[in-house]
Amino acid sequence: MSKNLKLPAIDPATVEPVRGSNYPAQFKPGVAGRSKQRLGDALGLKNFGVNLTTIKPGAASALRHWHSHEDEFIYILSGELVLVIDAGEQLLTAGVAAGFPAGKADGHCLINRTTRDAVYLEVGDRKDEDKARYPDVDLDRRNTPAGRTFCRKDGTPY
Amino acid sequence: MSKNLKLPAIDPATVEPVRGSNYPAQFKPGVAGRSKQRLGDALGLKNFGVNLTTIKPGAASALRHWHSHEDEFIYILSGELVLVIDAGEQLLTAGVAAGFPAGKADGHCLINRTTRDAVYLEVGDRKDEDKARYPDVDLDRRNTPAGRTFCRKDGTPY
Repeated sequence: MSKNLKLPAIDPATVEPVRGSNYPAQFKPGVAGRSKQRLGDALGLKNFGVNLTTIKPGAASALRHWHSHEDEFIYILSGELVLVIDAGEQLLTAGVAAGFPAGKADGHCLINRTTRDAVYLEVGDRKDEDKARYPDVDLDRRNTPAGRTFCRKDGTPY
Repeated sequence: MSKNLKLPAIDPATVEPVRGSNYPAQFKPGVAGRSKQRLGDALGLKNFGVNLTTIKPGAASALRHWHSHEDEFIYILSGELVLVIDAGEQLLTAGVAAGFPAGKADGHCLINRTTRDAVYLEVGDRKDEDKARYPDVDLDRRNTPAGRTFCRKDGTPY
């Protein structure tokens, strides 16, 4: 790793990881082994987010979901992750990329079924109007004047 | 590498590289050793582009430039690249990230001064109104009804 980096460059190891999720309590355990280093934020980027994300053995990247208005991209750096979509599963290893176009109604998540950490880069743009859909659970993410909030599919709060 | 990947996953090795640039002729030689595999396009992403870019020894990523409205992010996967900005140079090695926020008037480029290829991921969002500025040469990139075109700083064509 380069030493003494100065902005606009950073050593990702210097970016504090954010662990877990802001899901309602009953959905938190599945992603408790997830941590994200928000590289894009650390670099002052606004138009899209870039996270260096680590998934511990047994953990998932997220509940299976898709985005109404935001594109999502991932690139596996180390370890192995199982990508789950409607059509089934496939194994992603280091050097593989995947992409989830805005509005494509096919939920995805990544699960670490190995005994070592998996690390990937994830990129998503930022659209105020974006909604996230969760096909497997009674969860919606909506936009309110107070920000993005989770609720049940009928709109009632958790 | 995973075998038999299906969309939404891809093996980047299956994406055709696009070599060189669409710069005016006198600026092409410096980036002749650059090739880009357009992963985001291959995955059907529209809101931002993601390229897996290879810079051969002696070549540069681009003329030094900055963007008026688009953020740019890079992550070095292998090899070494020198990042050049107004304040000077620093060496970027595998695992280092860098970011160039929209509107920050500090041109950047990456130069491969080693004897082996350097490979990085680059991400940029897409804003119709974006302009690119080139502090070191008599070049502007502007938007016209016909698309993005290069011209001299006084607006005359090459």
